[in-house]
Amino acid sequence: MPTSLAVEYKDASPEVRAVFDDIKQTRKVDDVNNFWKYLARDPATLKRTWESVKQIMAPGALDPLTKEMIYLAVSVTNGCAYCTASHTAAARKAGMSEAMFGEVMAVTGMANETNRLANGYRVPVDAAFAR
Amino acid sequence: MPTSLAVEYKDASPEVRAVFDDIKQTRKVDDVNNFWKYLARDPATLKRTWESVKQIMAPGALDPLTKEMIYLAVSVTNGCAYCTASHTAAARKAGMSEAMFGEVMAVTGMANETNRLANGYRVPVDAAFAR
Amino acid sequence: MPTSLAVEYKDASPEVRAVFDDIKQTRKVDDVNNFWKYLARDPATLKRTWESVKQIMAPGALDPLTKEMIYLAVSVTNGCAYCTASHTAAARKAGMSEAMFGEVMAVTGMANETNRLANGYRVPVDAAFAR
Amino acid sequence: MPTSLAVEYKDASPEVRAVFDDIKQTRKVDDVNNFWKYLARDPATLKRTWESVKQIMAPGALDPLTKEMIYLAVSVTNGCAYCTASHTAAARKAGMSEAMFGEVMAVTGMANETNRLANGYRVPVDAAFAR
Amino acid sequence: MPTSLAVEYKDASPEVRAVFDDIKQTRKVDDVNNFWKYLARDPATLKRTWESVKQIMAPGALDPLTKEMIYLAVSVTNGCAYCTASHTAAARKAGMSEAMFGEVMAVTGMANETNRLANGYRVPVDAAFAR
Amino acid sequence: MPTSLAVEYKDASPEVRAVFDDIKQTRKVDDVNNFWKYLARDPATLKRTWESVKQIMAPGALDPLTKEMIYLAVSVTNGCAYCTASHTAAARKAGMSEAMFGEVMAVTGMANETNRLANGYRVPVDAAFAR
Repeated sequence: MPTSLAVEYKDASPEVRAVFDDIKQTRKVDDVNNFWKYLARDPATLKRTWESVKQIMAPGALDPLTKEMIYLAVSVTNGCAYCTASHTAAARKAGMSEAMFGEVMAVTGMANETNRLANGYRVPVDAAFAR
Repeated sequence: MPTSLAVEYKDASPEVRAVFDDIKQTRKVDDVNNFWKYLARDPATLKRTWESVKQIMAPGALDPLTKEMIYLAVSVTNGCAYCTASHTAAARKAGMSEAMFGEVMAVTGMANETNRLANGYRVPVDAAFAR
Repeated sequence: MPTSLAVEYKDASPEVRAVFDDIKQTRKVDDVNNFWKYLARDPATLKRTWESVKQIMAPGALDPLTKEMIYLAVSVTNGCAYCTASHTAAARKAGMSEAMFGEVMAVTGMANETNRLANGYRVPVDAAFAR
Repeated sequence: MPTSLAVEYKDASPEVRAVFDDIKQTRKVDDVNNFWKYLARDPATLKRTWESVKQIMAPGALDPLTKEMIYLAVSVTNGCAYCTASHTAAARKAGMSEAMFGEVMAVTGMANETNRLANGYRVPVDAAFAR
Repeated sequence: MPTSLAVEYKDASPEVRAVFDDIKQTRKVDDVNNFWKYLARDPATLKRTWESVKQIMAPGALDPLTKEMIYLAVSVTNGCAYCTASHTAAARKAGMSEAMFGEVMAVTGMANETNRLANGYRVPVDAAFAR
Repeated sequence: MPTSLAVEYKDASPEVRAVFDDIKQTRKVDDVNNFWKYLARDPATLKRTWESVKQIMAPGALDPLTKEMIYLAVSVTNGCAYCTASHTAAARKAGMSEAMFGEVMAVTGMANETNRLANGYRVPVDAAFAR
């Protein structure tokens, strides 16, 4: 096991540096987050994950802010502390106001509650929703 | 245990009917979904849940479509089949296109993946995200 | 893969029959549930699981009804359809009334909601709760 | 983003103070927990959540201790560190002994195990449990 | 919403057909599973997901059977019925015996149990595991 | 609540000491991990859990390394920080290389993603997988 588990740019292989450079350029940031530095321990996973994230989070039918709020809602549901912190920051950067944050949390909380009420009451799917 | 677990309008108490009426009027629908008919077995839970959902899902800093897509992302993450079916229908009714659906799924899937990569690599929260 | 995945008493080995007999005697039932018939494909897991369940669910500092309601709350939270069905039945057999069922669901739903609000707002543990 | 994320009583709006006062009076405590101070960033969520918790956790068909133990079992299942800490404290205050705590944990652990065994062995619901 | 939600080869675009062809060739099968036919509604997600799965599940430091058993353990933990069915089949095809299946389930069940015991007892990480 | 929540060997009852001794002898270690010291607050749970873990993790149809990697994948999926730390250490001790670790994480992440894609696209189980 390496002494340090984060791969810093100065110690990175050309393959890893190329991914770091693309992240920095795409996101217009000076350094990459810890997430990428840790993934860099496995360059294939780093590259594949970044390329998937880059493709998925690009503007499309949904704008970047909406995507970040969905990412945050999932991370909060799963209880991932790192992801909750990083995607709260990313959503704010993309324009999430304090009021929007409050509503994302309210919807996320309520969905988690009614998911269990539906499970517990064993509610059958309405014919209208079947497909 | 009652023979039928769903409470139909014709068999409902005045308290339950009042909630059903409010749901139908608010959502402009002819009948309520199975979810509400099953919750009606416990009128206090029916009333509280509906009032919370009504408040949370009303237009605010976020529009109803965005809220429904977040609700869907959480339901899919939790594997709630009923909620996935009902909120897919609700999101489509609120304007979710096929392309938007694809992007909600893509973001939800990726968030679930990177949540575990962050857990497994035990990535420490960046100082910049601490607060 | 065997044609039938459930092991019926008449086809069971003496080792499996001994566990089935103990389940039937302990629970005063004529046949064991599907859960045990499926686990019987792996006799070591069948025996270990039954002995653990028997020990844990016996009356102790908590009565059997309380234990069954906790089991149900966890099963609903995890979205296990089989376990929700079987432990709803078990809790009713142990004395859970319709009103109690409603309250178990209400607490389970609310806990799932506030768990996410605590995650999303990243609430630090109060000094008083630290230990 | 505000410098401090917890809303203290002295800085709170009248609307938030009214909720804090009701929590303190209902629970007979001198100050509210961090959970409520953080939720206070969104007064509508604070008020709705408190009113729901107050209604659900009041004595009913189940006593407060049973409700707190169910809350704890769900929080442990979801891995919510804040909620596990706060509801362990609440359950102890409501009368949970060390032996009861041990049994809540044992049932919670076993339910999480058998939920997955039922999933993995794909056990079909017994006809007797169907409804 | 399209009448049929699965995209069959005969109705597929050249882009989707290319992915289907690669799946069939890589896995030496006559047709692709429902999973791929449903994902084909979003060709970008179909292509990205297949390429990721193909890369990840190829023999590497771990053999394909080990990878399939890990995939199965995760799917069972999450309660994904589709994935449990498909990865049980895939693991058997890769060589998982009945005895191996029983052990995968036993480990998965026990991990889910001790994960909650560690949460509930709030066990601090041993200094030796810190890194 | 006891001042210290970990039970050290010198303070342990003969029943607890017997379990600690068996753990140390089986694993050839000088002291037991915090997990066991905390469980020792409930000697029945300590004994039952250790005996189950000892039986399940022994070499069988699967070797200890494979079992530890499955344990790790489940712990990462559930977001159990303690278990992720302890089973990463256990897997390394059993022979998990850095490359193997990367592949366990990659499979775990991808399974968590496709579990949700299958949920969200509501993919019906293929007839071939039904049993």
